[in-house]
Amino acid sequence: MSMDAATSYFAARRGKIAPALEALAARRASELSAAPGGAAESLSRVAEFCLGGKMIRGSLAFLGAEAGGADSGGGAQAEDLAALAAAMELFQAGLLAHDDIMDRDETRRGAPTVHARYAEEASGAGAPDALHVGEALGICLGDLCYFEAFAALAGALEGHPLGGRILALCSGVLSEVALAQMADVRWGAMKADVPEAEILALYRCKTARYSFSLPLAAGALYAGAEALVAPVTELGERLGILFQIRDDELGLFGETSATGKGLASDLREGKKTLFRARLLAAAPTEELPRLRELFAGGADAGPDDLRHLRRLAGELGVDDSIAAMTARAEEEARAILRALPRVPRATAEVLEGLVDYVTRRDR
Amino acid sequence: MSMDAATSYFAARRGKIAPALEALAARRASELSAAPGGAAESLSRVAEFCLGGKMIRGSLAFLGAEAGGADSGGGAQAEDLAALAAAMELFQAGLLAHDDIMDRDETRRGAPTVHARYAEEASGAGAPDALHVGEALGICLGDLCYFEAFAALAGALEGHPLGGRILALCSGVLSEVALAQMADVRWGAMKADVPEAEILALYRCKTARYSFSLPLAAGALYAGAEALVAPVTELGERLGILFQIRDDELGLFGETSATGKGLASDLREGKKTLFRARLLAAAPTEELPRLRELFAGGADAGPDDLRHLRRLAGELGVDDSIAAMTARAEEEARAILRALPRVPRATAEVLEGLVDYVTRRDR
Repeated sequence: MSMDAATSYFAARRGKIAPALEALAARRASELSAAPGGAAESLSRVAEFCLGGKMIRGSLAFLGAEAGGADSGGGAQAEDLAALAAAMELFQAGLLAHDDIMDRDETRRGAPTVHARYAEEASGAGAPDALHVGEALGICLGDLCYFEAFAALAGALEGHPLGGRILALCSGVLSEVALAQMADVRWGAMKADVPEAEILALYRCKTARYSFSLPLAAGALYAGAEALVAPVTELGERLGILFQIRDDELGLFGETSATGKGLASDLREGKKTLFRARLLAAAPTEELPRLRELFAGGADAGPDDLRHLRRLAGELGVDDSIAAMTARAEEEARAILRALPRVPRATAEVLEGLVDYVTRRDR
Repeated sequence: MSMDAATSYFAARRGKIAPALEALAARRASELSAAPGGAAESLSRVAEFCLGGKMIRGSLAFLGAEAGGADSGGGAQAEDLAALAAAMELFQAGLLAHDDIMDRDETRRGAPTVHARYAEEASGAGAPDALHVGEALGICLGDLCYFEAFAALAGALEGHPLGGRILALCSGVLSEVALAQMADVRWGAMKADVPEAEILALYRCKTARYSFSLPLAAGALYAGAEALVAPVTELGERLGILFQIRDDELGLFGETSATGKGLASDLREGKKTLFRARLLAAAPTEELPRLRELFAGGADAGPDDLRHLRRLAGELGVDDSIAAMTARAEEEARAILRALPRVPRATAEVLEGLVDYVTRRDR
């Protein structure tokens, strides 16, 4: 199955990124040892947090570089590439540490979130106001992740002719993410509906351009393949939209055991999804009160509610309209892949598998 | 008076950095206009926040570059230098936005802090849990400041032969700041005393190396003066220690109207200062309960308490020991200045004035 090409690629690259992150944390702990409070503990916590993820973003930096002809097999180039991939994971770790504070999430990947763990420790040490202490330390750890990501970039890009461009790309896309996150926080805080165009802009900035276009394009630039930047950026936008729509689907109707989240977790969080916007726009007046209550979060949605949502989405053509959008994005992604110049065969297969993965994954 | 050479230098360079920050915000608002929620409002808030400060760090980047022979009078080099200085101010804005959340500060420079203003707005818009919304948006705005700082760096350093080294310097020192801030948060949360060595490590990382050594060294590297990096880093460490000790003094005994903070604000916050550590170490047993109560924060210290602290510090030799430390740091700073290779005369005068400024400023 083609999706396997992507998942086994992620697993293989994870095997390069994880040791790079651990080595980086150890080296930086010694470089930063003059800081008060001890750098080693914080840096190993950063590495551990990164290691808990699938490392898709880091893998995509490898993939972009390989598409551009880089040799990731060994040597100094492969080492710098692993540092570039590690930077992608460190950015993500910082964003997650901060997001979990904003969303008040206590668990991630089955373990306590960064600030929840700090809060537990502060509480154990008898600190009054332990939650606030945990959040403060979580903000700091997120900041540390960002700075360490830029430090890793500085190392990976030292003397690289396109280093300045890669730095501008990373910081520019991260600014988009910060702005998108502000929009997301505001939408979560207010009851009003969000126009579909804004939701799609959020998907584009927070998922597509950040999680897909950025690592692919950074990898391509790292390999010196400037001609690849535009097509992999376009490709990443399609992949990201597909990924996000599948994410919304899993967040609403996914199996709890597979996603690691609770049943209908997106409903509980009142998340402003494309599905929600289209269903509310299409629903007849008499359905609106029940829908609004469900989508407002807080309500305990049971299996009956979810079956009702599913049925309505089918009857009202919401499923069809989203499926049509998905099919178009998938077709565009495959067209971009066919037009990519001179990509190694093995890399092309992983890219094809990636399209399947974002469209059909079940976790 | 020599201190004036520094303060009028800050004012003059502020006149270059402020318009650079405003132009940057306008340009970035247009580059980031695809982000949801509107980039312009957030970026102008970032610029406004930066503009509220004295811009000492940005000015020091200019000073380091001028010491290295850069011409800051006009042209492309002066423009990139202003962007480098703007990056220093953006880093500081991000750190302050996050610090104010951690410290629960509601005002800074006589205006509401970033998160307090967001919280006010959320409350006005009827959001439940407005404080949390304000903090979440404050975290995002701080993140945005960091990413915009690195974006400004990428622009300023494009094609610069030492660009990678300047990036590594900035990110490395910022990681030290994040670690120091974690130590500070932990010390604030716990009742235990902090060893003097740890307090001095905090002063070195959070004030000296970050606020003084970093901008001076980044400016020197920008000017290509690699030989200046070591001495201005050493100089910055002395300046920072002098600045911080004076800051502690102003935080305890400064005039409210001059510092813009409340009377004895450091006492109220239970800040772990060098003065506190030495006074507690030197105090006779019978004084300890009253001192501990005062230093624990929360207690409403009046003018009598402050007079008592002042008198004790004199009698117990704490003032003398700190004055000796200050005198040594000042002497070392002046010795470093005398040994600096080939610095323009006007720049040397500002550097001399800077030593006076950090030692004797009254706000």
